Amino acid sequence: WVSNEKVFYRSGVAQIQFADQKQEFNKRPSKIGRRSLSRSISQSSTDSYSSAASYTDSSDDETSPRDKQQKNSKGNGDFCIKNIKQADFGRREIEIAEQEMPALMALRKRAQGEKPLAGAKVVGCTHITAQTAVLMETLSALGAQCRWAACNIYSTQNEVAAALAEGGFSVFAWKGESEDDFWWCIDRCVNVEGWQPNMILDDGGDLTHWIYKKYPNMFKKIKGIVEESVTGVHRLYQLSKAGKLCVPAMNVNDSVTKQKFDNLYCCRESILDGLKRTTDVMFGGKQVVVCGYGEVGKGCCAALKAMGSIVYVTEIDPICALQACMDGFRLVKLNEVIRQVDIVITCTGNKNVVVRENLDRMKNGCIVCNMGHSNTEIDVASLRTPELTWERVRSQVDHVIWPDGKRIVLLAEGRLLNLSCSTVPTFVLSITATTQALALIELYNAPEGRYKQDVYLLPKKMDEYVASLHLPTFDAHLTELTDEQAKYLGLNKNGPFKPNYYR
Amino acid sequence: WVSNEKVFYRSGVAQIQFADQKQEFNKRPSKIGRRSLSRSISQSSTDSYSSAASYTDSSDDETSPRDKQQKNSKGNGDFCIKNIKQADFGRREIEIAEQEMPALMALRKRAQGEKPLAGAKVVGCTHITAQTAVLMETLSALGAQCRWAACNIYSTQNEVAAALAEGGFSVFAWKGESEDDFWWCIDRCVNVEGWQPNMILDDGGDLTHWIYKKYPNMFKKIKGIVEESVTGVHRLYQLSKAGKLCVPAMNVNDSVTKQKFDNLYCCRESILDGLKRTTDVMFGGKQVVVCGYGEVGKGCCAALKAMGSIVYVTEIDPICALQACMDGFRLVKLNEVIRQVDIVITCTGNKNVVVRENLDRMKNGCIVCNMGHSNTEIDVASLRTPELTWERVRSQVDHVIWPDGKRIVLLAEGRLLNLSCSTVPTFVLSITATTQALALIELYNAPEGRYKQDVYLLPKKMDEYVASLHLPTFDAHLTELTDEQAKYLGLNKNGPFKPNYYR
Amino acid sequence: WVSNEKVFYRSGVAQIQFADQKQEFNKRPSKIGRRSLSRSISQSSTDSYSSAASYTDSSDDETSPRDKQQKNSKGNGDFCIKNIKQADFGRREIEIAEQEMPALMALRKRAQGEKPLAGAKVVGCTHITAQTAVLMETLSALGAQCRWAACNIYSTQNEVAAALAEGGFSVFAWKGESEDDFWWCIDRCVNVEGWQPNMILDDGGDLTHWIYKKYPNMFKKIKGIVEESVTGVHRLYQLSKAGKLCVPAMNVNDSVTKQKFDNLYCCRESILDGLKRTTDVMFGGKQVVVCGYGEVGKGCCAALKAMGSIVYVTEIDPICALQACMDGFRLVKLNEVIRQVDIVITCTGNKNVVVRENLDRMKNGCIVCNMGHSNTEIDVASLRTPELTWERVRSQVDHVIWPDGKRIVLLAEGRLLNLSCSTVPTFVLSITATTQALALIELYNAPEGRYKQDVYLLPKKMDEYVASLHLPTFDAHLTELTDEQAKYLGLNKNGPFKPNYYR
Amino acid sequence: WVSNEKVFYRSGVAQIQFADQKQEFNKRPSKIGRRSLSRSISQSSTDSYSSAASYTDSSDDETSPRDKQQKNSKGNGDFCIKNIKQADFGRREIEIAEQEMPALMALRKRAQGEKPLAGAKVVGCTHITAQTAVLMETLSALGAQCRWAACNIYSTQNEVAAALAEGGFSVFAWKGESEDDFWWCIDRCVNVEGWQPNMILDDGGDLTHWIYKKYPNMFKKIKGIVEESVTGVHRLYQLSKAGKLCVPAMNVNDSVTKQKFDNLYCCRESILDGLKRTTDVMFGGKQVVVCGYGEVGKGCCAALKAMGSIVYVTEIDPICALQACMDGFRLVKLNEVIRQVDIVITCTGNKNVVVRENLDRMKNGCIVCNMGHSNTEIDVASLRTPELTWERVRSQVDHVIWPDGKRIVLLAEGRLLNLSCSTVPTFVLSITATTQALALIELYNAPEGRYKQDVYLLPKKMDEYVASLHLPTFDAHLTELTDEQAKYLGLNKNGPFKPNYYR
Repeated sequence: WVSNEKVFYRSGVAQIQFADQKQEFNKRPSKIGRRSLSRSISQSSTDSYSSAASYTDSSDDETSPRDKQQKNSKGNGDFCIKNIKQADFGRREIEIAEQEMPALMALRKRAQGEKPLAGAKVVGCTHITAQTAVLMETLSALGAQCRWAACNIYSTQNEVAAALAEGGFSVFAWKGESEDDFWWCIDRCVNVEGWQPNMILDDGGDLTHWIYKKYPNMFKKIKGIVEESVTGVHRLYQLSKAGKLCVPAMNVNDSVTKQKFDNLYCCRESILDGLKRTTDVMFGGKQVVVCGYGEVGKGCCAALKAMGSIVYVTEIDPICALQACMDGFRLVKLNEVIRQVDIVITCTGNKNVVVRENLDRMKNGCIVCNMGHSNTEIDVASLRTPELTWERVRSQVDHVIWPDGKRIVLLAEGRLLNLSCSTVPTFVLSITATTQALALIELYNAPEGRYKQDVYLLPKKMDEYVASLHLPTFDAHLTELTDEQAKYLGLNKNGPFKPNYYR
Repeated sequence: WVSNEKVFYRSGVAQIQFADQKQEFNKRPSKIGRRSLSRSISQSSTDSYSSAASYTDSSDDETSPRDKQQKNSKGNGDFCIKNIKQADFGRREIEIAEQEMPALMALRKRAQGEKPLAGAKVVGCTHITAQTAVLMETLSALGAQCRWAACNIYSTQNEVAAALAEGGFSVFAWKGESEDDFWWCIDRCVNVEGWQPNMILDDGGDLTHWIYKKYPNMFKKIKGIVEESVTGVHRLYQLSKAGKLCVPAMNVNDSVTKQKFDNLYCCRESILDGLKRTTDVMFGGKQVVVCGYGEVGKGCCAALKAMGSIVYVTEIDPICALQACMDGFRLVKLNEVIRQVDIVITCTGNKNVVVRENLDRMKNGCIVCNMGHSNTEIDVASLRTPELTWERVRSQVDHVIWPDGKRIVLLAEGRLLNLSCSTVPTFVLSITATTQALALIELYNAPEGRYKQDVYLLPKKMDEYVASLHLPTFDAHLTELTDEQAKYLGLNKNGPFKPNYYR
Repeated sequence: WVSNEKVFYRSGVAQIQFADQKQEFNKRPSKIGRRSLSRSISQSSTDSYSSAASYTDSSDDETSPRDKQQKNSKGNGDFCIKNIKQADFGRREIEIAEQEMPALMALRKRAQGEKPLAGAKVVGCTHITAQTAVLMETLSALGAQCRWAACNIYSTQNEVAAALAEGGFSVFAWKGESEDDFWWCIDRCVNVEGWQPNMILDDGGDLTHWIYKKYPNMFKKIKGIVEESVTGVHRLYQLSKAGKLCVPAMNVNDSVTKQKFDNLYCCRESILDGLKRTTDVMFGGKQVVVCGYGEVGKGCCAALKAMGSIVYVTEIDPICALQACMDGFRLVKLNEVIRQVDIVITCTGNKNVVVRENLDRMKNGCIVCNMGHSNTEIDVASLRTPELTWERVRSQVDHVIWPDGKRIVLLAEGRLLNLSCSTVPTFVLSITATTQALALIELYNAPEGRYKQDVYLLPKKMDEYVASLHLPTFDAHLTELTDEQAKYLGLNKNGPFKPNYYR
Repeated sequence: WVSNEKVFYRSGVAQIQFADQKQEFNKRPSKIGRRSLSRSISQSSTDSYSSAASYTDSSDDETSPRDKQQKNSKGNGDFCIKNIKQADFGRREIEIAEQEMPALMALRKRAQGEKPLAGAKVVGCTHITAQTAVLMETLSALGAQCRWAACNIYSTQNEVAAALAEGGFSVFAWKGESEDDFWWCIDRCVNVEGWQPNMILDDGGDLTHWIYKKYPNMFKKIKGIVEESVTGVHRLYQLSKAGKLCVPAMNVNDSVTKQKFDNLYCCRESILDGLKRTTDVMFGGKQVVVCGYGEVGKGCCAALKAMGSIVYVTEIDPICALQACMDGFRLVKLNEVIRQVDIVITCTGNKNVVVRENLDRMKNGCIVCNMGHSNTEIDVASLRTPELTWERVRSQVDHVIWPDGKRIVLLAEGRLLNLSCSTVPTFVLSITATTQALALIELYNAPEGRYKQDVYLLPKKMDEYVASLHLPTFDAHLTELTDEQAKYLGLNKNGPFKPNYYR
């Protein structure tokens, strides 16, 4: 749900990448313990295993939730979760999250007067966590009815799902779903008598895919899709290109707030956190090479430089390369420094950025990790050869040992370090959740014709609104334009303040 | 030629602003010593007086260059400058500049094989400095013929003009032109028998304006306009909106390299330099308020924070405001901190950001300066009241003294601090000059139909090329995509690497 | 073993402080589960409970190690530990630590030729961890015989103790000793037939105290004491002042490397780590007040500022205060900002720096923690009143809840955050361990008369040597003075390079 | 008066260095235009030529001040200066300086009640600048009578001397004194009927030397010497070692405030200022090597890193070297990076740190400058060989041109960059001047026996007092210890707060 990578929407990209992802995926079915894999499940529905694992334990009984009779305290049974008894604990988690999501709470307050989502029937498919619960309860306060499934078979916080079910939400999700469960849950959200969704909130595109495949007629009543993930957005652009997109879709992933805040600021903190929690490495004086100087790379470099590391950067794009130079980083090719660095971090959105040849040349004890896209950046597969020994030294930390005794410290098996090994501050998730809520409101209320059957970015003005809702957290005081100044600048006093192309 | 301000192209903006600028302009004719002002001269043609002043002295004789017979050593007399005898000194200045403009020198080298500007007849109107000379001689090496006038009546480096004339360029410019001289010089560039320009390189729009007014037929042969300044770009968008733009125009001002490098990095250095040279103030521990957190404001804030100042920020745009918060600056309204700060810096592109009421509340010794747009940000006019005493303590430094003895230190009378009181590194000018050269090449060689009668941004790929030409300065080594990676990303191995909307 | 506090050796200080500590100590006997407390046990022998807890679990059987017959694989039984079977696991931990302690490994290499500790009989009382094991095995390689006890009843890593015992060391220590066990173990180290120590390595002064009390005659053969902790050093200065110190003692705590590196650099990293692991707080934009701007405070402030926090500082000392100003921090009294800050950090070495009145005024959600001295800085006792509710939300994290619902997030109950909630990099411990080894060598080999019965700081030259042994880690290359330069500076080419008073 | 270098007081140092300095000095008599040099004039009396030059022009008439009849407006003629008519202009300069010297102004205010220097007869020999004038007038307000000469033949601000003379001070100094004038002026200060000094304030030791040589009996009445410069302090330590120091002396140079503030913070700002004013170099992306990581080097490195330079460090001292590593700088030998760096800065206090061999290997355009000691660090003499061409391109900037066309940019001919090419903020001078005033007060009022015939550092408490007097400038609020806290720490509530060895 946090995607660090740079985004590329170009002809042919999505398809190629997608095929590629599935290949990766199919290579290691045993790791995630499922026998038969449906073709259409998205990679993102499985890949944040480790992070989720750290939140809740599935120490409960072994009966499948699907086989249980479930009812909440009011007798409502339109949900399917692990254990309704955990509702109180889940409620507590939701309350803690509320404190860090001031923008959604502000939206609820405003909703006391008007209900911008009155009549909206939202079907959602996202990670089911305390933060999502705050979003769902906000949508409800804004007037919407919600039915929800999980976008990932491992990431559901069971106690939060319980609290939602207890609160009357039709939630179908538990931690450790099978492939079959996964689609069953999604189906239960949409295939229900007397209720038909008119809005989709998706994360990864599986829900959208399911409706396309099984209930294409539903789209007649659907006013729009809000999609958050890179993968899901890819799918939508593919549909659009193929002329098959039949409702407007909002690309939340590329909104300014998401790109600039999630990536730069979130990674600035999580790179340190992820490295410390896994390796306890001292940053001062360490030599680090960061591959890629997009927003994620910029965040990583800034943090490590600030903590006294000596940072080298690799780049393919001359503009980002020149920025790296001006920011005080030596721009090198990976091979120039690979023998001397203590830490290697990938942030490119590319594949095979660190390959076996590089790994062979690293010095003993070198730490290798990925902050970029999926698990493609480091060619981890190349390390699974007989002459190398793998030693799991901690959760998420493997020592890969060469015949001469050299050890490489590989983190999270090359998956996203910050998803796997650090926490994502609720405050950052708040920005994304608020954007999702506003995108739903915008699509639901947009006058006929404002949006066509295409993929849209959030209007600048709403982007600005999301930002403004987060300022009170910092006790920050915005200046207002005078009438004279607004006239001088040719701006409306309430914004938008920047052209659409501004980033 | 360096414009720090944020840019706004919105309906009605340009016209309003322009009217406004002229008003400002007309208010103080005595200051710049001209009686009758033509309507059409742009503000930018006069406003960098002080910076220019620091480069060369006009200690020469008083005869107008227009009244002199002029010939270079080869007998060529198709130019009009101050004093051809200064050519050697000017040549030396040009040589020094060449060392810092590696990209243009690289273009020259490539031009040994092909001449992408063969047949081009470029008429130019820019500041005439050593850096411009390097550009002109590069254009020439690329195959172009050039005729040139100054875009500012004060900014010509006479010795550089002499070197250009000696080298065979038809230059019409000297430091301290009159209004009449100004237009005469421009006219001499375009109104010449047997030579008709097919490309325009403009800075401020005066040359373009002149041709529109006097020789509209010339546009039949003109392939395009390259314009660098905010003001000139405004004028072009106005023409375009009015349907009067009759050739393609390239907006160089908004290219990524210009915006990201000129503004952020240049201001990061020049804010310190400008403050030190004028006031010798110690930065450590000083409280500073920076109005505006666009690229310019970001640069100023970063530099001052790094030097130990405590920096407050004001903003109108919630997105920039949130960035300021995340970057560690208290976001305030000006009045919250105006009594306590030691330095006030405006970087908004707006007008009346600091008004008399604010100035009245500042503490004794407070330094006030502008890094933003023109001279509108600080309401300097409000300080010209009888009860306040002005005391010029250094060049560009005034003490404005209140009846109770309180002194405000006003820099450059509210004009751009970095243009007036610091130098602009040649390296930064090199980026802009290279962009101009590439824009000329692109427009000149573009196949029929690629560009219409509209205003264009430089294609991303050329932006990237400009950046790549500057990397060798830093001994920076770019990584190349493998075929496999390029395919994975759906990119051409040679770029462009980013979508057009990427900034 | 990491002590962050500033040090004060002044008349009367130690005694007062000591009395005070005992009082604190006696107040909460129930917390640490011991009934009868000996007078003389030092506070430091119990106060790092939490940190130790995170290393190893005492899930083993309940029989006291004292009641077991113990033998290693070679039949040697001169030790008393938890479980010899854990030796292999412990060996692995030691090997990992070795990689980060290059200086000790270098000392071992040099010891292949000469044995500077040949004949030394070292009795030690320190935390028994992997890092200590590397030190002990180094001392052994240098020629020393060692007997060792733990300086803290909770901090022993049982598996490391097992590895040491298996390796032939006479170790008497386990995690979770009783008070009685504690002294029994120490006694077993010194009270042994046919072996009498001639060097003491102490951490906290308990070992030294025990010998003073029980076996004062032993000092006849003892060549010196090396003491690391603030508390232990206090005790030594007291003895010295009272004329009762009968051997030379080396104060390792105040060596330059310890003060400058442990405190500044270690805290720069651990403040971030400690806060993240306990609260997942986002640093960007947070307002923080740091009480105290000594080395610890400097480290905390630098790190937080670098991560985008807005940092305020309180100080009592004008010199440190002026440094804070010049470094860009607003110097305030606590009450000026207490209502607005998100995080409060104490680093003063003082007591009652944050009192109930301050806590009452903090805003909801404010995080309060201590990086300074012991647990005196925050008046935690004042929060144990009936109207406040404590809620343990995570290990080391308490919510203290006011009647109106306001929550304060108190970390580690006011004990040292970095000891309790983050890890200390082995590299930093390496500096201290190397200093201890060199201090032992120096005292053991010093010619008669170089050291009297007093407390000494490590000679500058040895301080420099410790530093030099750590440079290879950074691939750092020291410049050597030429003969001419050495003569010019009046220095020996091999140092010392700075006067003794240089810090 | 600002000395950046590290200090070494070791056996033999001073004598060797002194001999050496004189040698250097004698090598270039023509440069400073004097024929016969007295043996005893200190190097510092001549070496800040360039900085002084930038302050005032000696465009006046050629008559020696010694040959003029001089009287101020009150008829007093006990002074000898350039031109009494400049008094008004000088007064204005002094007033401006007063605004930045809050501590001295605060001392004056307190002096309204008590006159701690009542009866003091201070003879001074320092640079005569506006800042010194503020000091002298403060001493006068505190009760002292003053007679003053210049410690440097070029550094006197004539207009300030005039204002002082007009104000009744017996000043003997002008810009451009001859060697003979220099000693004549000093003599006029001390050799006066009916007035005998009882306090000496010296900068460089020439005044002290003169009295020793000519009027040794005067020391019977002299209560003490306050000396500021490295050179002067060297001389005093020599005297002390030789048993010839016959009054107590206060070493102001090594006070904490001087070392920590002057060097670190002043150089952090002046390195940027000095480089910009001379070369307009852009810092971003530049590779820089800084030789020496003492306080001066730390300041330079911090500033350049903050501005986006890539900084390498060379060091001889392992402790400083390790600090450089932990602060994020690559520690190298000069030769490892000499070919690639854009800027070389020396800050070692050593000689021949950059020699011809290094200069031969630098790349074209490399900037070389010195922030350290005197003019010994760069072997400038080695560049004065026939095959190299020197070209003066600006004041203080020489291009040294190799036969192959390579140019090295040498600043200030290797003298101190910040003295020569940037300004020193009054605020920093204020710290030093306040220290001098307090040292005079302390020595003058010390009870019999507190100080012997030795060289002393300022007591910590007075160091703290100096700092505290500068806090109001930053609106900084110091926290006071409670009685309980003071008792706990064993400190007096009013300080001193740190042990004497604290730095």
